[in-house]
Amino acid sequence: MRYDFGSDNTAGMAPAAMQSLIEANDGFARAYGSDDVTARAADLIRRRLDADADIRFVFSGTAANAIALSMLAWPHEAVLAHHAAHVCTDETGAPGFFGSGVGLIGLPGFSGKIDPLALHAALDEPEVGHRQPPAALSLTQSTEYGTVYTEEELRHLIEPVKLKGFGVHMDGARLANAAAAGFDLTQIARLGVDVLVFGGAKAGANCAEDLTQIARLGVDVLVFGGAKAGANCAEAIVMFDKSLSRRIDNRLKQAGQTASKARFLSAPFLGLLETNAWEDGAAHANLMAQRLAAGVAARSPFTLAHPVEANAVFVRMPPAAHQRLNDMGWACYRFDDGSVRFVCSWATEEAAVDEVIEAISTL
Amino acid sequence: MRYDFGSDNTAGMAPAAMQSLIEANDGFARAYGSDDVTARAADLIRRRLDADADIRFVFSGTAANAIALSMLAWPHEAVLAHHAAHVCTDETGAPGFFGSGVGLIGLPGFSGKIDPLALHAALDEPEVGHRQPPAALSLTQSTEYGTVYTEEELRHLIEPVKLKGFGVHMDGARLANAAAAGFDLTQIARLGVDVLVFGGAKAGANCAEDLTQIARLGVDVLVFGGAKAGANCAEAIVMFDKSLSRRIDNRLKQAGQTASKARFLSAPFLGLLETNAWEDGAAHANLMAQRLAAGVAARSPFTLAHPVEANAVFVRMPPAAHQRLNDMGWACYRFDDGSVRFVCSWATEEAAVDEVIEAISTL
Amino acid sequence: MRYDFGSDNTAGMAPAAMQSLIEANDGFARAYGSDDVTARAADLIRRRLDADADIRFVFSGTAANAIALSMLAWPHEAVLAHHAAHVCTDETGAPGFFGSGVGLIGLPGFSGKIDPLALHAALDEPEVGHRQPPAALSLTQSTEYGTVYTEEELRHLIEPVKLKGFGVHMDGARLANAAAAGFDLTQIARLGVDVLVFGGAKAGANCAEDLTQIARLGVDVLVFGGAKAGANCAEAIVMFDKSLSRRIDNRLKQAGQTASKARFLSAPFLGLLETNAWEDGAAHANLMAQRLAAGVAARSPFTLAHPVEANAVFVRMPPAAHQRLNDMGWACYRFDDGSVRFVCSWATEEAAVDEVIEAISTL
Amino acid sequence: MRYDFGSDNTAGMAPAAMQSLIEANDGFARAYGSDDVTARAADLIRRRLDADADIRFVFSGTAANAIALSMLAWPHEAVLAHHAAHVCTDETGAPGFFGSGVGLIGLPGFSGKIDPLALHAALDEPEVGHRQPPAALSLTQSTEYGTVYTEEELRHLIEPVKLKGFGVHMDGARLANAAAAGFDLTQIARLGVDVLVFGGAKAGANCAEDLTQIARLGVDVLVFGGAKAGANCAEAIVMFDKSLSRRIDNRLKQAGQTASKARFLSAPFLGLLETNAWEDGAAHANLMAQRLAAGVAARSPFTLAHPVEANAVFVRMPPAAHQRLNDMGWACYRFDDGSVRFVCSWATEEAAVDEVIEAISTL
Repeated sequence: MRYDFGSDNTAGMAPAAMQSLIEANDGFARAYGSDDVTARAADLIRRRLDADADIRFVFSGTAANAIALSMLAWPHEAVLAHHAAHVCTDETGAPGFFGSGVGLIGLPGFSGKIDPLALHAALDEPEVGHRQPPAALSLTQSTEYGTVYTEEELRHLIEPVKLKGFGVHMDGARLANAAAAGFDLTQIARLGVDVLVFGGAKAGANCAEDLTQIARLGVDVLVFGGAKAGANCAEAIVMFDKSLSRRIDNRLKQAGQTASKARFLSAPFLGLLETNAWEDGAAHANLMAQRLAAGVAARSPFTLAHPVEANAVFVRMPPAAHQRLNDMGWACYRFDDGSVRFVCSWATEEAAVDEVIEAISTL
Repeated sequence: MRYDFGSDNTAGMAPAAMQSLIEANDGFARAYGSDDVTARAADLIRRRLDADADIRFVFSGTAANAIALSMLAWPHEAVLAHHAAHVCTDETGAPGFFGSGVGLIGLPGFSGKIDPLALHAALDEPEVGHRQPPAALSLTQSTEYGTVYTEEELRHLIEPVKLKGFGVHMDGARLANAAAAGFDLTQIARLGVDVLVFGGAKAGANCAEDLTQIARLGVDVLVFGGAKAGANCAEAIVMFDKSLSRRIDNRLKQAGQTASKARFLSAPFLGLLETNAWEDGAAHANLMAQRLAAGVAARSPFTLAHPVEANAVFVRMPPAAHQRLNDMGWACYRFDDGSVRFVCSWATEEAAVDEVIEAISTL
Repeated sequence: MRYDFGSDNTAGMAPAAMQSLIEANDGFARAYGSDDVTARAADLIRRRLDADADIRFVFSGTAANAIALSMLAWPHEAVLAHHAAHVCTDETGAPGFFGSGVGLIGLPGFSGKIDPLALHAALDEPEVGHRQPPAALSLTQSTEYGTVYTEEELRHLIEPVKLKGFGVHMDGARLANAAAAGFDLTQIARLGVDVLVFGGAKAGANCAEDLTQIARLGVDVLVFGGAKAGANCAEAIVMFDKSLSRRIDNRLKQAGQTASKARFLSAPFLGLLETNAWEDGAAHANLMAQRLAAGVAARSPFTLAHPVEANAVFVRMPPAAHQRLNDMGWACYRFDDGSVRFVCSWATEEAAVDEVIEAISTL
Repeated sequence: MRYDFGSDNTAGMAPAAMQSLIEANDGFARAYGSDDVTARAADLIRRRLDADADIRFVFSGTAANAIALSMLAWPHEAVLAHHAAHVCTDETGAPGFFGSGVGLIGLPGFSGKIDPLALHAALDEPEVGHRQPPAALSLTQSTEYGTVYTEEELRHLIEPVKLKGFGVHMDGARLANAAAAGFDLTQIARLGVDVLVFGGAKAGANCAEDLTQIARLGVDVLVFGGAKAGANCAEAIVMFDKSLSRRIDNRLKQAGQTASKARFLSAPFLGLLETNAWEDGAAHANLMAQRLAAGVAARSPFTLAHPVEANAVFVRMPPAAHQRLNDMGWACYRFDDGSVRFVCSWATEEAAVDEVIEAISTL
């Protein structure tokens, strides 16, 4: 079986990540995250985001997302997210586990992007004691369906949420692919700025206890993806709202996400970011996805299910065709929307893309 | 600052672990634990334990312990453990978090070993609705104070627990050091066997709903330590009682402990176990601890606080002496019993041992 | 505002309940549920159900349901329920809170009854590690939309669930109304009996670790409703599967559901069951619902949204009409299906029914 | 068996409570706490406390305490409390359950009162990531051992806690007995006022994110006891810090503590407070405790274990004597300090006191 396109977790560590890991392995180092490698990796992330933020490295995106959401919502509250978002469909209820019952409210929208009208409708629902009211919005960049939000689109989603005094989380498991697609990372911390100018007073009037939250800029917590960008199992939690990082080391330790040998989590990040392999690998992945999409469009009878803006290609094909492709040895999976997903990574080879296009064209 | 003796997490990966990781990195592999490297590493652990068991690799000992305990106790129940055990003192309440309120009952005993009389007393407490009754025993091998339980000692602790129909967990973060000290790993799965022969009927009479549990042999869940034995951040959960592994992949995913790129968790184990570096490194660590202990005894005015049976040496020294040692650049920490701990690992060099002995002798 | 039809929680205690409460108040009594009144009330429930079962009294239906579900599903598992069931829509995520993340899978079906085909489809879903697989079925009798399952219908829902070795919970907040509508309470404990005869072997083959569960008859846990039947805030948790009641007093105490003065929870039940007011009041409520439904059908332009089989009447009326009715002083609420609900209770007076029919007819 | 002195939960409802309940039962009323009776009862509590506060009625003290603590501490934090406090010893780990792992740090002190030196020592502990740091203080008034804190004593405990920016919870299950013993209820909301004057700046400098908390006066959440003061199973949660009551109805509903027929929870409070039976009953209970204590001191060989300042008397007697007393039909229980407790309530009769003194004198 060939796993080239099965997911972006089938690739290994990128050379720059591995090299950095090997170098970091030398000698003794302070445990539990107070080593130099970890400090330098965090600095590089801050520089990429052009923002002051507290940063911690954890082992899994599921944990990173769930812990971030548990900072923003109480057990009796809920998080708004696209119904196809990873937190809703692929994390075995982790937000409810880490959040002790935190609810999820799934919102519709094309190709993995939340429909602003649906968001507004959800925010306008009258609050009643017997349901979990929203406390935060979770966004995914790039989305589960391989699309990339524009800043304008994000602004339209974040603004009404901030006006309510709610929190904003961004799942950036594939943030590198969004960046490679042109998304300006330095805007993440700033996305909510207009809200302050135009909306503060009104929001304060409605919701006085949340004034301090409204004063925050944009996204409160970002999960900065490592694994899918060429690291080992490593993600960074970026807390732009530093009040969220109070006693964060206790929180992570309790949640089983403190690395005793933290340099092994941060060194791959360091290598990827020092060399630009983080961006370069993602750009390569996106390019391979474009090549794959073009080939499928040109040479197969199948249509693409979603715009190809990042590193994933979704192809509408009948179950029998999908089965034949699997039988030919290509691992790939059907999604909830009925299409079949092909994912590219830093490691995807042009030759493999051409081979799978060839295979698809014969189905 | 020199971290050689600060903890066994200050060392890097052992060469065999790193080499295996580098090799495992090649090419594409199935995600989420169904790759070959992971299967082979699990096989080697089963072989070491001479037992059929379900095995999963997770990122941290804290998570491994807490998840194991959540399998054995409900939120309204408690776990019996030595009051100085890692689960009681160093995991920020993780058993309560993963177990949604599971309680801990701390038991006394010299040098980190549970006093059997104290255990019996706890088991004999009448159950009342307003307290959390015990549901499991947690053992640590080797212990927090660097001692190693004999099989006989373990049998005396496990037997009465099994007679009650309760579960048994073993925290083996330093299991390699216990093995290197002569503890026979293949006995772990068998430690409870006498219970069956002599105790089944009586237990059944008291506690009929637990008969199936009583039928289990010995330890139910073992955490097989990786990080402290030369791996990266990796521990294995070994479920001798296979009923505990039902839907384990859902459980781990929800708990943020499923590795997307699982080979990076298992490959270091594979390398350590294929080459015997797991045992050899621990034997070296134990030897260095003996050398350190002997040096301190011979050349310093300080006494040892606990028998040195594994890789840790605890020295009784006044706070001022400890402070001077830190000022001389040697990182080491005071424990709850008031002594200062020095930990050796696969990476500890003889020269460093001699240097720190020299330093201690001048305090 | 008149609350006669707003919900079945707007009525007070029925006279028999109040009388019993007054009598139980005399003198000193053992605390925490070991008093005689509580024992006698539990006996009467067992007699009604013609079953041996462990019974505890708790304060709220939300807690009763959530605690029952937490007995049947782990945090990484889910409960199947009608999407309009109280556990899904009106309990602020209590199953996830008490169950530390337990998920809910909403199933469709007309008028509050689960569609068997949808249930089968859900049970046939392949299990994957990244989703919460079902572990139990939750049924509501009578349903949220005022319908009553026949034994045949329940059997068709329970059988495939038992074949999987999963648990069954029944929310009987309005069980009295179902009983008054002809549902035979003594069948609840027996509903799964056919499963044993025809299905045990097959189930065992698929799911060996669950054989003991399959041996259970029918419903595992029933919430036997008090509040809506004329008690104060009191519900009974009935555990037909007695293995579920192990350490139940610890579980309830921890969950804040142990009554210090337990006779105040059980006495109203005792009064209702000794006098048959439990059934008589429900029969009266159902009769009033019939009268209301007939009046609406005959005298208003509006149609009924669901069959009227218990004590609730759902009327399809435009928002403006609903608003006018509220403005006329009649409290009543719009449901998720868009219809307006009118609920009758033991206390509903014929004259009030006629008044509200008159009001509706003028809208 | 006679339960007169077994606990203060063995008495029934006081006449004023029952009368009010009977009256409140008439007719239809809004459900879920928005009825008039509930509003009036809350007003009377606010008047007693001379404070503006948000108030909700719940079913059990265990739930009230645990929910209050979950407002003040995250799962990775802990609550400081006397080691003999109800939250530590008699609630089956409810704070950890409702708080998803919240820890408890037991503090010593004579006769149930926290030793200020021990509190200071706990507050001065350096914070480390691997332990749960304190986030709140829980006080019990009157204490588990029947003593009553003076305002001065409370001030010395609350001040350093507020200086840290931490929260304060008061378990007032027996607040009526404290009030009857001379404790001025109107001081509860004001107890921290000195902190503001002298300590604000310094605290702000250390802990900027907590300034808003420091600005609070005194106790943040009070559990205002009903059951032990003559109500049915009913306690009030009093939130002086109104930011804690945000979405409180969702929180309580999810936690199974929302009364559908809320008037049955609040009416007994209303009756007790309108008639002063709340205070009068407690004064009677305290008087009976004095009589009992005096009788034991004068006529038995046993000594009192603690000052008798409220409604409980603790007698040091050997196990054999305790056993004989039980055999004579008097239910009473041995506590963790080894003494035997006798509790008086509004319902305790002088004759019963004399009878039990007589019995004790013959042991």
